[in-house]
Amino acid sequence: MIFTSERTGDDDGYGDTSAIMMELASQEEGYLGMESARNTEGQGITVSYWRSLDDLRRRKANTEHLLAQRAGREKWYTRYKVRIAQVQREYGMNDA
Amino acid sequence: MIFTSERTGDDDGYGDTSAIMMELASQEEGYLGMESARNTEGQGITVSYWRSLDDLRRRKANTEHLLAQRAGREKWYTRYKVRIAQVQREYGMNDA
Repeated sequence: MIFTSERTGDDDGYGDTSAIMMELASQEEGYLGMESARNTEGQGITVSYWRSLDDLRRRKANTEHLLAQRAGREKWYTRYKVRIAQVQREYGMNDA
Repeated sequence: MIFTSERTGDDDGYGDTSAIMMELASQEEGYLGMESARNTEGQGITVSYWRSLDDLRRRKANTEHLLAQRAGREKWYTRYKVRIAQVQREYGMNDA
């Protein structure tokens, strides 16, 4: 799953919720890993890897539940986009 | 295409080559867009979007050619990984 976003200036509850979401993800069935980067202009990309689309769907339901309990994405992001994509091939250098 | 990487401290030729690569990509057939973020620890993610795998393959050949002419990735990155993934679905908020 590719999550691209632009942050608002509002940090209220963000770091906390973000940490909980990463913790929950890492405990979920089918979770393979996550990579995240945000530059100084507030543009961010988080990619999380899952074994199957079913695992990702379950994860999505749990995420929405947590966000509904808290302020939700509208408070922290001016815009965001979620892309569900299936990895076809991978290669690299010095990668774990 | 998802490109995740970690930079070396070596900037020699990097900004220049990076700009050329982005410019070339934007002119290529099937190019849909690009998003990039790098955090202060040097962890970076660039996602580029292409109409088809064939468009991406042509792009790859041109990229490798340019990198072979210049110092190449080994100089600028301590590690990197390329993932070719097919977008299945997308949704979001306030996205262009």
